[in-house]
Amino acid sequence: MLIESRRFLLTGGASMIGARTAALLLEAGAKEVVLYDNLSFDAPDEALRALCADPRVRLHKGDVLDLPALEAACEGMAGVFALAGFMSAGIAKNPALGLEVNIRGTHNVLQACHSLRVGKLVFASSSAAYGYGAIGGAISEAEPFHSAGVPSPPALYGASKVIGEQLCKLYREQHGLDYIALRYSTVYGERQHYRSTNALYIIEAYDRVAQGLPPILFGDGSDTKDFVYVGDVARANLLAMASTASGEALNISGGKPLSVKFLAETVIRLAGATMQPEYRDAPTSGFRITTDAPFFYDNTKARERIGWSPEVGIEEGIARMIAWRKGATDTAGTAAPAA
Amino acid sequence: MLIESRRFLLTGGASMIGARTAALLLEAGAKEVVLYDNLSFDAPDEALRALCADPRVRLHKGDVLDLPALEAACEGMAGVFALAGFMSAGIAKNPALGLEVNIRGTHNVLQACHSLRVGKLVFASSSAAYGYGAIGGAISEAEPFHSAGVPSPPALYGASKVIGEQLCKLYREQHGLDYIALRYSTVYGERQHYRSTNALYIIEAYDRVAQGLPPILFGDGSDTKDFVYVGDVARANLLAMASTASGEALNISGGKPLSVKFLAETVIRLAGATMQPEYRDAPTSGFRITTDAPFFYDNTKARERIGWSPEVGIEEGIARMIAWRKGATDTAGTAAPAA
Repeated sequence: MLIESRRFLLTGGASMIGARTAALLLEAGAKEVVLYDNLSFDAPDEALRALCADPRVRLHKGDVLDLPALEAACEGMAGVFALAGFMSAGIAKNPALGLEVNIRGTHNVLQACHSLRVGKLVFASSSAAYGYGAIGGAISEAEPFHSAGVPSPPALYGASKVIGEQLCKLYREQHGLDYIALRYSTVYGERQHYRSTNALYIIEAYDRVAQGLPPILFGDGSDTKDFVYVGDVARANLLAMASTASGEALNISGGKPLSVKFLAETVIRLAGATMQPEYRDAPTSGFRITTDAPFFYDNTKARERIGWSPEVGIEEGIARMIAWRKGATDTAGTAAPAA
Repeated sequence: MLIESRRFLLTGGASMIGARTAALLLEAGAKEVVLYDNLSFDAPDEALRALCADPRVRLHKGDVLDLPALEAACEGMAGVFALAGFMSAGIAKNPALGLEVNIRGTHNVLQACHSLRVGKLVFASSSAAYGYGAIGGAISEAEPFHSAGVPSPPALYGASKVIGEQLCKLYREQHGLDYIALRYSTVYGERQHYRSTNALYIIEAYDRVAQGLPPILFGDGSDTKDFVYVGDVARANLLAMASTASGEALNISGGKPLSVKFLAETVIRLAGATMQPEYRDAPTSGFRITTDAPFFYDNTKARERIGWSPEVGIEEGIARMIAWRKGATDTAGTAAPAA
């Protein structure tokens, strides 16, 4: 699909990933970009205000649970990015609402795309759709969902993404709606929030270091994660929309197992500090997401189908996040190019 | 938990499994049995009327999506059986409502049990929680959920059961509510309906044979299924409620791989007919559930935890279903014992 001169809507458009994707759509010549967001998670900040300074951007306060409002907003849209959703920590606090937003909200987006004849949907899925626990090594898109021994919040989150993808598949089969589901690994970067349990290994770690406190690690720090930079994720969204690929789920990941010890040490070093992480047995509240072995999400299929590979390495990405956190880059990469 | 002199509520209480479980509760001396059901799937039949002739049985027309009504109905209940739900075929027709009933409906049951201090919940999960496709051999409770290549309706159904189980787990962790999740394989027997895609291999097959038509098989008939008789399932429900086990998911299955060819031939033979099944390439409408290899759900854990094993073999079970279908056993095993 052509991006230039076309109109796009992003649910969760005010989010870290949404605003960054919107900025790329503007760069690619989109005619209009609608940020459809209820602003319950992402209150407008400097970056969002800078983005909205572009006359082609419209911030539309609305909820994915409000189907009539969503349908009205989707009128004339060439493509929709379904980015609104609860993550594990939010589901732990309010499981009923979190599941409703992730499942009925996704169904509403599909219904709106179908009834308003939107050309394509890019659905924000997650590597949580593989679950945790008994996984390890290179994880391809064929991997099943593992929930045995996994804390309920990430298991519920992952299962809600499995359902979102299957609803996309059902709409494609029943109504011919084109879609691509992107299974993002842990996304991090500018405008990082505290809602992503695994991204806390970077943002909470940095915020502690900035206060002179050591990052906290559980166990021996050998647990691994697979991180992907928000700018790379936004580019994947754009490529998925622009490509002719449809009906597929693709891993969007860094593609490397990074130990939480390495992450904490990298944050400390890039913050210019010298402390050591603090090791604890287990969190005193909340939950911890672990796997039995080092793993990474294989992103070969994304390269083949939509020509995407990650470009920003973990050190560069963390450095950018720290620069943003220090207030050095207010627009967080979302400023529209000069007219 | 003691069954005698106690009160129990069954959501989906008018169903094949619900009414059969109610009959066992009465036999075990329950003081009251409430069949909470919106009657959208199971209109009252002769068997249900016979069951309701017992003064201890109350048919309460209500919906699991109506939390206040559900809470009012749960007052004074020692235990609840959560049996209401959509299956794959129903989800294909109305995915939004099907997922809402299976997920928000289950959440409502948990909320009602928690707020009304119900002692224990038995949750009707399903072997669909393992998915289909890349499975084979003996499937234990640790098996992950396989959805790659699986048609959306059974994948959505299975994922909704994964979510139901995780919600039970969350309520146990957060509120101390005891539960057992039972993963039934394909249930069949008296009062068999057409909503279970896999049970069609028995009931639709018989109904065709009764009309002089051959049962239809897709492919070469070597696909296998794992069937469990409804009376055995009702007994598992009772044992799960009565036992001290909590916080676990257990396979409730026949524990044997039965080819669909064997099933069709057995139905033909027990119906007293002599035709051969008709082989077709694929269904012209709807979907077909297949696996890559013969499989069965290992029920060892159910024997260990709640002392349950299947007792009625497939030939005896099919014979009973046929006898019911012929009208020979109107009460379908649900008649209350004589006072």
